[in-house]
Amino acid sequence: MKTYEVAVVPGDGIGKEVVPASLKVLDTIADIHGGLKFQYKEFPWSCEYYLEHGQMMPDDGLGILKNFDSIFLGAIGNPKLVPDHVSLWGLLIKIRREFEQSINIRPAKFFKGLRSPLVNPNDFDLIVVRENSEGEYSEVGGRIHKGEDEIAIQNAIFTKTGTKRAMKYAFDLAKQRRNHVTSATKSNGIVHSMPFWDEVFKETEQEYPDVQTASYHIDALAAFFVTRPQIFDIIVASNLFGDILTDIGGAIMGSIGIAPAANININGRYPSMFEPVHGSAPDIAGKGIANPIGQIWTAKMMLDHFGESELGQKLLDTVEEVTNDGIKTSDIGGNATTIEVADEICSRLKKTA
Amino acid sequence: MKTYEVAVVPGDGIGKEVVPASLKVLDTIADIHGGLKFQYKEFPWSCEYYLEHGQMMPDDGLGILKNFDSIFLGAIGNPKLVPDHVSLWGLLIKIRREFEQSINIRPAKFFKGLRSPLVNPNDFDLIVVRENSEGEYSEVGGRIHKGEDEIAIQNAIFTKTGTKRAMKYAFDLAKQRRNHVTSATKSNGIVHSMPFWDEVFKETEQEYPDVQTASYHIDALAAFFVTRPQIFDIIVASNLFGDILTDIGGAIMGSIGIAPAANININGRYPSMFEPVHGSAPDIAGKGIANPIGQIWTAKMMLDHFGESELGQKLLDTVEEVTNDGIKTSDIGGNATTIEVADEICSRLKKTA
Ligand SMILES: CC(C)[C@H](C(=O)O)[C@@H](O)C(=O)O
Ligand SMILES: CC(C)[C@H](C(=O)O)[C@@H](O)C(=O)O
Repeated sequence: MKTYEVAVVPGDGIGKEVVPASLKVLDTIADIHGGLKFQYKEFPWSCEYYLEHGQMMPDDGLGILKNFDSIFLGAIGNPKLVPDHVSLWGLLIKIRREFEQSINIRPAKFFKGLRSPLVNPNDFDLIVVRENSEGEYSEVGGRIHKGEDEIAIQNAIFTKTGTKRAMKYAFDLAKQRRNHVTSATKSNGIVHSMPFWDEVFKETEQEYPDVQTASYHIDALAAFFVTRPQIFDIIVASNLFGDILTDIGGAIMGSIGIAPAANININGRYPSMFEPVHGSAPDIAGKGIANPIGQIWTAKMMLDHFGESELGQKLLDTVEEVTNDGIKTSDIGGNATTIEVADEICSRLKKTA
Repeated sequence: MKTYEVAVVPGDGIGKEVVPASLKVLDTIADIHGGLKFQYKEFPWSCEYYLEHGQMMPDDGLGILKNFDSIFLGAIGNPKLVPDHVSLWGLLIKIRREFEQSINIRPAKFFKGLRSPLVNPNDFDLIVVRENSEGEYSEVGGRIHKGEDEIAIQNAIFTKTGTKRAMKYAFDLAKQRRNHVTSATKSNGIVHSMPFWDEVFKETEQEYPDVQTASYHIDALAAFFVTRPQIFDIIVASNLFGDILTDIGGAIMGSIGIAPAANININGRYPSMFEPVHGSAPDIAGKGIANPIGQIWTAKMMLDHFGESELGQKLLDTVEEVTNDGIKTSDIGGNATTIEVADEICSRLKKTA
């Protein structure tokens, strides 16, 4: 019996709904496999936890998580209780950084049964490889002066190591797919970090002579996600640009609620973390109507990560079938609840086992 | 006779096609007005100019431009000849900064006769007020170390003055429209500049108790431009976020080729500059098929700026009619040339004069 120890952090808002629903699905997957088991341990770390304890996770939180095979996370953030930069940097981003999850993989594709807001969604199938450890997201910076003279300075830090690592990951992934990598830049407006980014991209493409490349400024690239997403295979992007592109990726699929993400530790020293692209959605939390597909798709990426890609593919195919048959939440035009969607996926998985 | 002295900088690529086409339209506007005249002086500043002179404009370029009533600019950039950050910071961004064009106004709306890539474009009508003088676009930063250890540091600088100015402009504009301002933030990931941005936004909204507000992180906001653009009236955004959002704005209208921009000097010390959102599009340059509507719409914004909003509105209405009647370039599903579109607009303007 292969047993995986999974740390479960539902977090805030709809995280507390989509995570349990997805665990049911994971258990069903384990059942039909027979030789596979997931052992969960749940942690209540969240904004509510912060209100009680003054921090998003206990002092030894990372020490606890370190021993798991992976982290399965819902969504963090409830600005009514805790400022976003406090909650996110105290938990989600802290884990990404401390556990050297330097790559964030985020697929988007034409998804059966979804109504894309695009007239012609054109069977797109792309993956954004997002640099996940540095760039525009940095704690370096500060303020000077008060009142009308106040100034805030924010440093974006791009290292050769971090930039090259993301790019090599993107090119390697492209070789398993359609051999094309697009770079998201903005070197016409942002004159220190982005020309550097371009240089590293040029260097990397020379190491992969069989991979075709393109490079677009982020403004044009974001527009292309709307007008012709089918031209992309792999896109490599900085932390911020990857963040923006993947929300658009969710939107063109038909709902940000279905987009998944995998925060990958590539040096094997720490667990990787699986979380959907969407946030905690306080506006619909507690109603039982959140779309569980984003979270379930991250479970698929976790299966891939554990070397169970056949089961992973079966899971995603089943999700598409269920969606295509109209069992779906209201954000994508159905009237099913979170649990109904998950249950339907479970029962179909069992039937075809 | 009211005479306006207009400095004309066609720039690179399709700039050299859409600018002359738009000047024809402006002349027609002047003719039907009767008491209005535009006096143009054209400057060949561009990447080709750079190859010859080693700079994008002569040493006294700004001194020359300063005396005009406005600047009418096409597009700058040809990365095959000159790196983008050199060409843009040597001309376009230089003018924005030195002439204190601190606000960039960029409308996007459902446009008659255009095929939006959205299934349900829903009559959206929004304006992005982009901070145009600081933020993520800054020359502050640099590099350290070489080879595998190289690091690039990019500073984003947000002053209270610059931030507040853009926000007040946005709120004032909202009062002339639907009384709603949305702030584009990313304070959950970017922890120095963006929480500062949020604070200034909170302060500003208190000064405008009659204006409704909302605040979204840029990732979600970019997605909303695709899924429900009709919820927006005015969006206030930093330099980079405004840049990204307005390309998406162009995309959802049906083509980036129609989106206009006005770089406004609000202290009256220097001329304002009118330029489309699109770039120089080297791939289609020289074919005579570039869409002139973005440039013509900026001419409308220039008319507004000169206090001729009635004529400006007439111009935009005529452009919509011509588009709706199918006289349009290939990027928006027609087969007319740049000049044919402009000529048709001119002849209709004359007919209805
Ligand atoms: C060319 C580039 C520097 C410019 C910008 O980013 O400001 C352009 O994209 C724009 O939107 O005007
Ligand atoms: C919550 C936020 C800090 C986070 C990010 O920007 O990385 C989220 O938007 C994401 O995409 O995972």
